[in-house]
Amino acid sequence: MDKVVSEDIAAMMAEIGKRARAAAAELAFAPAEAKRTALEAAADAILARADEILAANAEDMAFGRDKGLSKAMLDRLLLTPDRVRAMADGLRSVADQADPVGAMIAEWGMPSGLHIRRVRTSLGVVGVIYESRPNVTADAGGLCLKSGNAAILRGGSESFHSSGAIHACLQDGLRAAGLPEYAVQRVPTRDRAAVAEMLRMTRYIDVIVPRGGKGLVGLVQAEARVPVFAHLEGICHVYADKAADPAKARAVTLNAKTRRTGICGAAECLLIDRAIAPTLGADLVRDLLEAGVTVHGCPETQALDSRVTQATDDDWGKEYLDMDIAARVVDGVEEAVEHIRRFGSQHTEAVLTEDNGVADYFFARLDSAILLRNASTQFADGGEFGMGAEIGIATGKMYARGPVGAEQLTSFKYLVDGNGTVRP
Amino acid sequence: MDKVVSEDIAAMMAEIGKRARAAAAELAFAPAEAKRTALEAAADAILARADEILAANAEDMAFGRDKGLSKAMLDRLLLTPDRVRAMADGLRSVADQADPVGAMIAEWGMPSGLHIRRVRTSLGVVGVIYESRPNVTADAGGLCLKSGNAAILRGGSESFHSSGAIHACLQDGLRAAGLPEYAVQRVPTRDRAAVAEMLRMTRYIDVIVPRGGKGLVGLVQAEARVPVFAHLEGICHVYADKAADPAKARAVTLNAKTRRTGICGAAECLLIDRAIAPTLGADLVRDLLEAGVTVHGCPETQALDSRVTQATDDDWGKEYLDMDIAARVVDGVEEAVEHIRRFGSQHTEAVLTEDNGVADYFFARLDSAILLRNASTQFADGGEFGMGAEIGIATGKMYARGPVGAEQLTSFKYLVDGNGTVRP
Repeated sequence: MDKVVSEDIAAMMAEIGKRARAAAAELAFAPAEAKRTALEAAADAILARADEILAANAEDMAFGRDKGLSKAMLDRLLLTPDRVRAMADGLRSVADQADPVGAMIAEWGMPSGLHIRRVRTSLGVVGVIYESRPNVTADAGGLCLKSGNAAILRGGSESFHSSGAIHACLQDGLRAAGLPEYAVQRVPTRDRAAVAEMLRMTRYIDVIVPRGGKGLVGLVQAEARVPVFAHLEGICHVYADKAADPAKARAVTLNAKTRRTGICGAAECLLIDRAIAPTLGADLVRDLLEAGVTVHGCPETQALDSRVTQATDDDWGKEYLDMDIAARVVDGVEEAVEHIRRFGSQHTEAVLTEDNGVADYFFARLDSAILLRNASTQFADGGEFGMGAEIGIATGKMYARGPVGAEQLTSFKYLVDGNGTVRP
Repeated sequence: MDKVVSEDIAAMMAEIGKRARAAAAELAFAPAEAKRTALEAAADAILARADEILAANAEDMAFGRDKGLSKAMLDRLLLTPDRVRAMADGLRSVADQADPVGAMIAEWGMPSGLHIRRVRTSLGVVGVIYESRPNVTADAGGLCLKSGNAAILRGGSESFHSSGAIHACLQDGLRAAGLPEYAVQRVPTRDRAAVAEMLRMTRYIDVIVPRGGKGLVGLVQAEARVPVFAHLEGICHVYADKAADPAKARAVTLNAKTRRTGICGAAECLLIDRAIAPTLGADLVRDLLEAGVTVHGCPETQALDSRVTQATDDDWGKEYLDMDIAARVVDGVEEAVEHIRRFGSQHTEAVLTEDNGVADYFFARLDSAILLRNASTQFADGGEFGMGAEIGIATGKMYARGPVGAEQLTSFKYLVDGNGTVRP
């Protein structure tokens, strides 16, 4: 299949799209129990076929090393017995979630006698375009299945064999539950023309979820004719207010920056209330420096500690994804909000304060997908929100926003009961 | 302003966009009371300035007659003292609705100690593109304001003066409440290049709502780079099941077709269960014929009444918007669902049955925005759903679906409270 010539890609993708559409029509009303069975059977298959998956991964790793992939990329690509087990656990955790399809969101009566219910429905067909992490195959396939959506998965060419082996386990699960095999399809070619096709397949794909670096997400957002659930950047801010509790502020700031620096919820900018700059502000900066973080500060931040390097204009709104942070002294929550509005990416921001008025101001005036008070930005994650898993995090304002779990992959419809009710 | 040369339109629209963005940032956290005051003051202004509005409308009517507009178009354009009063009433009814912004959609705690709330936020800037009905200016402007969104209104060139006079009243309301005047802007030119600009203004407009005929909506859907809330067609079906209650079925079918034929919720196709074709089926067809409806039937429907004309392939999935209906005898709810899936537009469908199993099947297998049981499709309307008013009806599956009222013009964000909570 790897050799399909480019002009045949469109035909192949249309065929995949048609099958997905047909499977989605069945999945939309598949019993919750069948979906749960499929997810659990897929988890079983992943454990039972772990050796096959690891062998496929070894093939990808060899290919990746030949290709000269970076150490970070090879690490993302690598599967270990632990990581294989984590995939199975993830599928089980999605299986255990409440079934979103058919759940009632609201109900009310009208004076006309109508009884109106608003219930969740599946979206239809979800296209997932991702890079080297093979586990996205299991996570995305599982979440789409749970939410009654057909999935078309297009993984990176580096993880071609690993994704194939994992996909086979998902199909084992579907078969065990008597659900359509085409419910989760994988694009069986490394040809990049397939991605271009997916982005234009408005007839067959209802939403595209890109998982990967800024290059991939930016390309998808620019080229897609299909709606996209994504975030381009996670430029997360932490604002330490004059009414911050010092112990909480120090713990949260350090965690927000250093727990993991490569994830989208990592803090990239610390804003310090001028009133506590010489006291708590200096402590926060010192904590970061001593943890090995390079602090790029405004002149006032530099005055707090001689190890702070001078920030340039490029440091504001910069996504380091590394042991670097921008830091700036601001004039209270008003200037913090102004700064975030100007340089943020509407992903996740935290306010550190014991003052309810300050927290309310921060929560009301900012429009990021996630706003936290006295808690680390690293909590921006579907699992930490109780969603079992996430297919990604979205910063758009249309429909999905924040961590995208099974419930966020649904739409709704109105079911209306009358009794021969006519409109006057 | 009417004379702006085309190359200046882009600059003018960008200026309008920037002002809208700035106004939206303020409106997003405007107090509920201020928005209510603005809506009520706008309603007062409409009544106080009714003569001005009627005079402006007379100017538009004269222009329309010169231009040779059809009788139906002139009727849509016409304002009367009653219609002016109805606009003021509409604004008051929107004012009386609960404020959607800030309302809590869900809240839950996590084992980490985080308390998570999901609350509604405004979308940002809404662009409304409409045709001759001047009242859309008040309805759309009012709903956007209620939902904390800035509005950019672009009415049809026929209603230019009427819309201007109504828009002036909305601005009176905004001023009375101390809200930014640019919260509701009107595109001050008849030049169609302004519409093309709006469809591309992704930086300044978050969603476009087209209100008008298929020509306008189709153009907007095809050309817009901004998300669109709309429906292209309302091909609504009524299925009369063998377990239908005859009296309810007759009342609902007649109402669904004939109450008003020109609205998107009017029934366009009657599907009759073969088991009751000679009995209830014949009654339904006769009721329609005697009300003056032309029934385009399949051969089996023709056999029920000699006045039924022969349906052609074009009659299935046709939006007549007139005293015409397609009619077909089907083999139970299964074939009815198949027919609707093939020919429907996912707008609104009704099932007439006393059998819960049949109703459940119809509700589960179809994915129209609105599904009704024993009630008329003419209820597809924001007012009838308790929304006070609607800016339109959407059939897309991303976010807004069905009647779009103030609540449907919102997004959401997560507000998370911790207590120095860090992620392990």
